[in-house]
Amino acid sequence: MLFLSDNAAAVHPRVWEAMRAADEVQPPYDNDALSRALDERFTDLFGREAHVLWVATGTAANCLALATMCAPHGGVVCHRAAHIEADEGGAPGFFLHGAKLMLADGADAKLTPDAVRAVIDPIVPDVHWVQPHALSVTQASEAGCVYRPAELAALGALAGERGLGFHVDGARFANAVAHLGCTPAEAAGPCDALSFGMIKNGAMNAEAIVFFDSERAALARWRRKRAGHLQSKGRYLAAQVLAMLEGDLWLDNARAANAAAAEIADACGARLMHPVEANEVFVHLGPAERDALRAQGYAFYDWGADAARFVTAWNTPAEDARALAKAIGRL
Amino acid sequence: MLFLSDNAAAVHPRVWEAMRAADEVQPPYDNDALSRALDERFTDLFGREAHVLWVATGTAANCLALATMCAPHGGVVCHRAAHIEADEGGAPGFFLHGAKLMLADGADAKLTPDAVRAVIDPIVPDVHWVQPHALSVTQASEAGCVYRPAELAALGALAGERGLGFHVDGARFANAVAHLGCTPAEAAGPCDALSFGMIKNGAMNAEAIVFFDSERAALARWRRKRAGHLQSKGRYLAAQVLAMLEGDLWLDNARAANAAAAEIADACGARLMHPVEANEVFVHLGPAERDALRAQGYAFYDWGADAARFVTAWNTPAEDARALAKAIGRL
Amino acid sequence: MLFLSDNAAAVHPRVWEAMRAADEVQPPYDNDALSRALDERFTDLFGREAHVLWVATGTAANCLALATMCAPHGGVVCHRAAHIEADEGGAPGFFLHGAKLMLADGADAKLTPDAVRAVIDPIVPDVHWVQPHALSVTQASEAGCVYRPAELAALGALAGERGLGFHVDGARFANAVAHLGCTPAEAAGPCDALSFGMIKNGAMNAEAIVFFDSERAALARWRRKRAGHLQSKGRYLAAQVLAMLEGDLWLDNARAANAAAAEIADACGARLMHPVEANEVFVHLGPAERDALRAQGYAFYDWGADAARFVTAWNTPAEDARALAKAIGRL
Amino acid sequence: MLFLSDNAAAVHPRVWEAMRAADEVQPPYDNDALSRALDERFTDLFGREAHVLWVATGTAANCLALATMCAPHGGVVCHRAAHIEADEGGAPGFFLHGAKLMLADGADAKLTPDAVRAVIDPIVPDVHWVQPHALSVTQASEAGCVYRPAELAALGALAGERGLGFHVDGARFANAVAHLGCTPAEAAGPCDALSFGMIKNGAMNAEAIVFFDSERAALARWRRKRAGHLQSKGRYLAAQVLAMLEGDLWLDNARAANAAAAEIADACGARLMHPVEANEVFVHLGPAERDALRAQGYAFYDWGADAARFVTAWNTPAEDARALAKAIGRL
Repeated sequence: MLFLSDNAAAVHPRVWEAMRAADEVQPPYDNDALSRALDERFTDLFGREAHVLWVATGTAANCLALATMCAPHGGVVCHRAAHIEADEGGAPGFFLHGAKLMLADGADAKLTPDAVRAVIDPIVPDVHWVQPHALSVTQASEAGCVYRPAELAALGALAGERGLGFHVDGARFANAVAHLGCTPAEAAGPCDALSFGMIKNGAMNAEAIVFFDSERAALARWRRKRAGHLQSKGRYLAAQVLAMLEGDLWLDNARAANAAAAEIADACGARLMHPVEANEVFVHLGPAERDALRAQGYAFYDWGADAARFVTAWNTPAEDARALAKAIGRL
Repeated sequence: MLFLSDNAAAVHPRVWEAMRAADEVQPPYDNDALSRALDERFTDLFGREAHVLWVATGTAANCLALATMCAPHGGVVCHRAAHIEADEGGAPGFFLHGAKLMLADGADAKLTPDAVRAVIDPIVPDVHWVQPHALSVTQASEAGCVYRPAELAALGALAGERGLGFHVDGARFANAVAHLGCTPAEAAGPCDALSFGMIKNGAMNAEAIVFFDSERAALARWRRKRAGHLQSKGRYLAAQVLAMLEGDLWLDNARAANAAAAEIADACGARLMHPVEANEVFVHLGPAERDALRAQGYAFYDWGADAARFVTAWNTPAEDARALAKAIGRL
Repeated sequence: MLFLSDNAAAVHPRVWEAMRAADEVQPPYDNDALSRALDERFTDLFGREAHVLWVATGTAANCLALATMCAPHGGVVCHRAAHIEADEGGAPGFFLHGAKLMLADGADAKLTPDAVRAVIDPIVPDVHWVQPHALSVTQASEAGCVYRPAELAALGALAGERGLGFHVDGARFANAVAHLGCTPAEAAGPCDALSFGMIKNGAMNAEAIVFFDSERAALARWRRKRAGHLQSKGRYLAAQVLAMLEGDLWLDNARAANAAAAEIADACGARLMHPVEANEVFVHLGPAERDALRAQGYAFYDWGADAARFVTAWNTPAEDARALAKAIGRL
Repeated sequence: MLFLSDNAAAVHPRVWEAMRAADEVQPPYDNDALSRALDERFTDLFGREAHVLWVATGTAANCLALATMCAPHGGVVCHRAAHIEADEGGAPGFFLHGAKLMLADGADAKLTPDAVRAVIDPIVPDVHWVQPHALSVTQASEAGCVYRPAELAALGALAGERGLGFHVDGARFANAVAHLGCTPAEAAGPCDALSFGMIKNGAMNAEAIVFFDSERAALARWRRKRAGHLQSKGRYLAAQVLAMLEGDLWLDNARAANAAAAEIADACGARLMHPVEANEVFVHLGPAERDALRAQGYAFYDWGADAARFVTAWNTPAEDARALAKAIGRL
């Protein structure tokens, strides 16, 4: 029973169908009808003018978005645990031509205006210091926690006041929306660009970068090609994205993953390291306890020396989650 | 009837099957069984130790390969018509951190040792001059022509003598092998890395970078992640590559495309701009002639003011090629 | 008798005096009184709002100027013989983060609007093509020839029309002004930034980057520090620049160098490869002729197989120039 | 009385003399006799094969040195207070093409093997994590403290074991040697490259990058030109460096600065934040105390809210230091 990650889950049958149907579509790159439908589809979803590019990975989505906000001599404020800092193999340094990540701290891998100010306020506006150009937060956070709309609004206000671009890494944005029960626009806050994750939620290899102004989107198109991320058969990526939105598949999938995580979380009680608001469960578990679970057939990652991370996906069998919950309860 | 390009052709049914079957495979990135099978599969194919990475585009394949050969302060010798110079939106400048493309000339978009020497011999070994670090050729060339094994051997010898890495952009490598009727190893020559194209030949979004030493491959793995090109569900890319090799599908597809091109070429006579050795046909055609063909339903690109390019694909209907040949013959 | 280059000539006594006097000045970087005087001094000189940074080399001046005009995914149109293309060891690739130099041709190493159009007009506004962002010309050109004000106006008009930044590499700007007998503003044309050369004309290691808007200058200040070009004792560079301007020393020095070159040129007749309008003389001379001159004690560079380049400096003895002229006349 | 920094102090008379004498020297760049003498001079000084490049700033020295050790996808371990992290405007990100600085902690701005291990041991050797490629320490440290030879040996051993390049930022290396009373080789430890600071110690704008292998030095020469740091009249920089070494001027100057700092330190007692081992004195002083000192004519920087930094230079008048010491004593 697999709780390693949602990042390798199977592709959803409706995504497969949509991809097969794209065989018939023709013009290359993003000139096909499916790619051209993205802007309108996301504009509807967010109730706000949206300009959308597909890319094959979350790392590319994040870095192309940030490249429209941060000059090579600037910096991006993010949480110390942010994916862009901790898991992307230095990709921001590459895409941003040497710009700096400026690390802030905060509970549950979330930032607050105060945490951001603690990083940027001491920065003297002098050429010896790298200046902040952008702010990036992750929704849901790397600790599986979700920003409330008011929290994002406050961060966005700070970003606006200080002239920072505002990016949301939404690798698990669907899980955040499912948890909040709010609109996508509320869950994204007043950001300039959102990496709208699809892959961890049932797609194969398509994420959507949603820009809320046409200028940044236009810039990202040049950078996408230059980074080797413009696929000639891009229609197969657009098909994935559209299939995920169709009939709210993205929300249904996220709700299923969240529900499985909630079931596990309920069994963990005081063992929980963070509130479980998405599809990740971080649990204090000693080595012997982890061994015991593994002996029962559960696969998951250690999280430091005394904890474990369990991740559910759109297709995690409910009975697997229930069984894991019971197994943890029995420890 | 479409002769615009092979870059947006449908995915071959056997590739689809292999991708669907990959739903069951699990570990992420390139830790899955399919990705792990690539080295052996290509080692067999080339009769030479091969280390293979999948990537989603030819641009990424070329640039990641070159990044293992050329330092940021170096240069890559290539033909003026090379894809890396003319069609990749400056991607080599990005992946190579500002290295320079050094443009050589040659008939049929092919390089010769003399053409390479004409570029590199005048370069004084002094810090004021960018020094050549690598040589890149395209097989089949951007003019649809094919390097003979002896030609590649001579270029490889020159590269070795001058300490240049040797890269082959094989976006249409299959068409070259099909034309030559030789082994893949002969058609690749003594190169250090080959971008083995699959997408134009029936895959969806997977190319193989074939390295012939483990060190360059290891370096490329770091760079691939850093460029946002390491997909978490990489098994779907490995599946495409393996399906293309299975039962020589890659060769069958290329032969079909080449045959269709040959049929068109036969009708063109003195109109041909280059020998037709792969699946591209460059034809002198005036504006009125092009209009006449388009009025009959043929779609293709203009090639300058007085010519047209026709590209066939693995799935170009034989009757379409025949009809086009007749239409050209009638002009 | 040295005619190798003007780039290693001794420092002018008045520059030395000004540097010594700067010992007393105090605040670091460019916060000292000398550095702060530059903007006003150049605003007076050009009759146009100027914002000025010192840097230690012409390569840094050119590349920092261009970095304010050309994004990493863009291109800079320049002559094939331009210093930035041919002599700066790939520095533009570094400072511009991989942007492309787009090479144009033209007699006497000068560009015309037609030559620029020949490069940029075929560029399709599509992500597969690198787009031009800036235009750079050299005044005086690498062939020792000088743009007339009307020529620069025409190039500037084209740049404006196409949205290109306009940069002038003025490594030998003083020689151009001396030749034209016009104002510095006329000799610089409607450019956005001028690398105003001092080093070849009697300074030690200070060039001035003259920006004509405050925004580009502000950007260049960040980039200068980031490139390690902000010296803590910058006052010694400012002192050089101010000394060169004081009492028109820059013009006097350039006139002396130009006069020496003119004397040599007069003896060359049909041997001249280019009009001699600055301080460089390019002369058709066979190997035996060059040997003969060297045997008489003249040092100079070969220029290809059948020519030589003679460069005069601010301190070239008039008798040396006269002697060389006679020696060439006797050949 | 100025205690702001040593970075803007006047140029030493013997440096001036050497520079003036260089007027007569001729070949450009680093082909002159003075530049060519550097390798031997430093080989003698260190008793170890040395290859030396001049550059105009410490930032350039550090970054060019590190560029020979750290690939664009790698990282450099340094102290959180290191100049490369805190004061160089993001220059390492530029020169290293996006490589990452990995911040370690340690008392007195010094690193220990344990502190380095705390940073690098958790790094999984996997492409998602940036890997350490180099280690950089500052001698004397940013807190004015000095590494003992044994401390450097231990750090060098760790670097060797983990395959890290080892760089010493010696902006105040002379002060460290003066304090230790050991050989330069001992004070530099088993490093691969040393930025040997001259500017803060009486030179104008020349630092020496000392490489202890020819390969790194050769690489740095390409990179120096590419960064616009190869001056055509480089002999004036070489002259500064040689003058500083001549007759141990560098040591005499550093001893003078250290002595002045020691005098101040003696008056500070428990107010001292760090041992005073070079020419910087960090002192706990409240706002009113700082005001009082400033009212008496002392210029210095605040160091956070409750402290001040006093820096002495080669030319700090002994009476000024004595007067400051007394003034602090009276507080």
